Amino acid sequence: MSRNIHLAYNKLLTRIKDLIVLKSAQSLIHWDMETMMPPRAVELRSQQLVLLSRIEHKMSTAPEIGRLIKRIKSSSDFETFDQIQKRNMYLMEKNYEEQTHLPEKLVAETTKQQVLTVNSWKKAKSKKDFGLLKSDLEKLVELNKKIAEILMKVKKVSTQYNALIDNYEPKIDTQTINRVFSELQNGLKPLLNKIQNCSDYPHEQKDRITISIEKQRKIAQLLTQILGYDTVSSKSGGRIDETEHPFTTGYYDDVRITTHYYPRNYISAIFSVLHETGHALYEQNINQVFKYQPLGSISSYGFHESQSRLYENIIGRSREFWSYSLPKLKQITTPLLDDIGLDQFFFLINHVKPSKIRIEADEVTYNLHIIIRYQIEMALFENKIEVQDLPGIWNQKYGDLLGLKIENDTEGVMQDTHWASGYYGYFPSYAIGNIYSGQIFKSLKENVKNYNKKIELGELEEINHWLKQNVQGWGSLYEPNELIKKISGEKISAQAYIQYLDEKYRKLYHI
Amino acid sequence: MSRNIHLAYNKLLTRIKDLIVLKSAQSLIHWDMETMMPPRAVELRSQQLVLLSRIEHKMSTAPEIGRLIKRIKSSSDFETFDQIQKRNMYLMEKNYEEQTHLPEKLVAETTKQQVLTVNSWKKAKSKKDFGLLKSDLEKLVELNKKIAEILMKVKKVSTQYNALIDNYEPKIDTQTINRVFSELQNGLKPLLNKIQNCSDYPHEQKDRITISIEKQRKIAQLLTQILGYDTVSSKSGGRIDETEHPFTTGYYDDVRITTHYYPRNYISAIFSVLHETGHALYEQNINQVFKYQPLGSISSYGFHESQSRLYENIIGRSREFWSYSLPKLKQITTPLLDDIGLDQFFFLINHVKPSKIRIEADEVTYNLHIIIRYQIEMALFENKIEVQDLPGIWNQKYGDLLGLKIENDTEGVMQDTHWASGYYGYFPSYAIGNIYSGQIFKSLKENVKNYNKKIELGELEEINHWLKQNVQGWGSLYEPNELIKKISGEKISAQAYIQYLDEKYRKLYHI
Repeated sequence: MSRNIHLAYNKLLTRIKDLIVLKSAQSLIHWDMETMMPPRAVELRSQQLVLLSRIEHKMSTAPEIGRLIKRIKSSSDFETFDQIQKRNMYLMEKNYEEQTHLPEKLVAETTKQQVLTVNSWKKAKSKKDFGLLKSDLEKLVELNKKIAEILMKVKKVSTQYNALIDNYEPKIDTQTINRVFSELQNGLKPLLNKIQNCSDYPHEQKDRITISIEKQRKIAQLLTQILGYDTVSSKSGGRIDETEHPFTTGYYDDVRITTHYYPRNYISAIFSVLHETGHALYEQNINQVFKYQPLGSISSYGFHESQSRLYENIIGRSREFWSYSLPKLKQITTPLLDDIGLDQFFFLINHVKPSKIRIEADEVTYNLHIIIRYQIEMALFENKIEVQDLPGIWNQKYGDLLGLKIENDTEGVMQDTHWASGYYGYFPSYAIGNIYSGQIFKSLKENVKNYNKKIELGELEEINHWLKQNVQGWGSLYEPNELIKKISGEKISAQAYIQYLDEKYRKLYHI
Repeated sequence: MSRNIHLAYNKLLTRIKDLIVLKSAQSLIHWDMETMMPPRAVELRSQQLVLLSRIEHKMSTAPEIGRLIKRIKSSSDFETFDQIQKRNMYLMEKNYEEQTHLPEKLVAETTKQQVLTVNSWKKAKSKKDFGLLKSDLEKLVELNKKIAEILMKVKKVSTQYNALIDNYEPKIDTQTINRVFSELQNGLKPLLNKIQNCSDYPHEQKDRITISIEKQRKIAQLLTQILGYDTVSSKSGGRIDETEHPFTTGYYDDVRITTHYYPRNYISAIFSVLHETGHALYEQNINQVFKYQPLGSISSYGFHESQSRLYENIIGRSREFWSYSLPKLKQITTPLLDDIGLDQFFFLINHVKPSKIRIEADEVTYNLHIIIRYQIEMALFENKIEVQDLPGIWNQKYGDLLGLKIENDTEGVMQDTHWASGYYGYFPSYAIGNIYSGQIFKSLKENVKNYNKKIELGELEEINHWLKQNVQGWGSLYEPNELIKKISGEKISAQAYIQYLDEKYRKLYHI
């Protein structure tokens, strides 16, 4: 590689590093807003965030970036670039092209409309009146169709909706998603039927134990430590705080999770903590060599979700995990949970029952919630339905797929913030994540000897190491479709996930 | 005012607003570093801070700012500007001139040397070995002499040291400081003599009560509420957190304080909280009209200190304040402080005794610590002494002024971080703050009827209102010398402060 092109490449990386560092500062300021900020600071905070995103936009669309990319790619030495350098170049160019093709005015207008729509959504949701949301949502969808139309050309994909999906799960399209979601649905429906009709199927099951927030904080610390997410030692790179909606944010050595403690529902915080821990471990375990480079980020939101669901469900709702952790949970809460047995607890946290709210869904029915949203989004962006049709279609699909009657739009189409927040094309990532988690788990089982024995002993090191080596560490060196192939030897397929569910729930319900 | 110049002025203010908002984001990131950041994040955090200060420097020295200032000032309409507009112009020009005259390389080198010197200081302090600090400190002083030499010309002041002082206390010089510090010293020495020789003078007095950090947090909340600094309500614009060294940071609606709780020294946190509350109230009470303008900031560090010392000492160590607050303190800590009487407590928190450590000093001896530092700084920047002479001169002055024998440089010249951090010219602000607080208090007594009765009833509203109207609210509309005149009718003078101390301590020690 000639010195010239080498210098240009390093110049480019330096600019991207600045951008990455700036974004990490923005995330921190967001985090503070959700966790620590005094209420009166709202206006100042919005000024800070607006300024920083203006600076970010200016930096990410600087013409010098375009010139450097062009110079490097047109050099005859570009062929001598190695895999890492080429992938960095690809990601920088992709981002630059997308950013510069979107008119600043359109982006600003969309951001503004998002804020308005989220506000309308909050109001409409609390008043159970979709009518209060409709007009803002229509405007936001229109703006996003304009964005999608531009991105469709830049990304060279066939439809607007595919362009939106590519923002979260690159290089996948509705054709592939249709295939795997059909597989999923065809596998889940018979399993769900069998469960609901089995002789042991219990009625409403809930424990009414109240556990103080102080104790629940200790439980969260215990569980994150068991999973290997350190929030307490002098080498810690994490924190657990409290927000209305749990989330994970950060970069490599400073990745923070949040949860919400309900005194009368300790189970809720347990699984939100396990879920966010999965996200946090992924962010922390990306190869340190990629830090401050485009490669130093997750492969896709589907993969992000695969890690959170794997830790939350496949490990976190396993008998082995609680065989180790339940006695420790009892110690913290004694005497409140003293009488609960492992079998009873295992059953409690895995009970399958169709419900109206996605985030409360069990492992088996969860994906049906996603399939409904996916089908509706697709129809909306393919102009087969209008915003005003959303409630009707929603309710109809919940009847068809889950056998539920939706009483109002608050427990229906308005339950999630995604559409009001402008996250179109995001929903499929959740089910794709579950599907990946099945494929990853299959490979993990084959490669980590006695993995279940290790979970039972609370020794997660080897499992974590395998996930780091084979999934998390790669950052975004590979496209998601390449990465899943590398991990599982197959392209994306729902079979492994269905098999995992089948085995687990047949045993649980004796069917 | 013609439309043209109006537009230019608004353009200028918009740029300065961006700078102010950026600085508030930087402060927040600093705050997080001290309070919340996981240990592993140090390297990422330094990247974030370096990037943001690079952006800040670029924004604050943008040639467009210089062009706009020139265009406005050369317009014949400039004379029609009102007081506020003219003052904003003055402050913008002053800052721009100073920023652009300092070579970027010199600033960067100084920043780097500061980091190295602070590290050496920490090491040297823990090993009680000034030799480990000497060479880094010499370099840092040299760099600051270069900066001071440039600033001296830009600010049009007569000496390097005056230029450094002007950074913290604009428009004051060593001539004025010499005058008021002499007044102070001449007033304090006889008072201190009388106290130490009085018949009631007690031996070592300390209470050995241990109060849990949890209880001390409640005490901090109680005291800030009494003083009117809200950290709990739904309209709160503040927070209390914990750090090694207490500090205040923030802007208008988001001003946060920190403290350090020592279980075996609850008194320490009480007064650091009262002190920082004074700082916080000042920042919060600047006129909202000045927000995002140069005017929307403190008048000087001396004035900042006047507010912290007024709340900490003049109000916070008064008999009236504890007549109201002690019963509440007892409630929180019951039964630990049940037996302590008001007189006993009042005596305990006001005991006068020369000590080696500035931050532990009582009201009477505190200023002698400052005078020593001021005289040494001045000699250093007037090239009358060298860095290597510092320990010797320090120890000699502590003998002369406070009658103390310094055993080693850790309890001597290395006790404060200021010099290793490059804050030359800052120390005088502390004593100037005390002096101002005396003049302000004198005026307050004359204008707020029954002010002491009000403190005794825990009704601080009227006192706070008066301070907001007459001191804090003005922001930096006035130079400190103008502001003290406006408040007290006099130029800066130590008489009022000496009189306050005299009355209080003659009563306390029956002299």
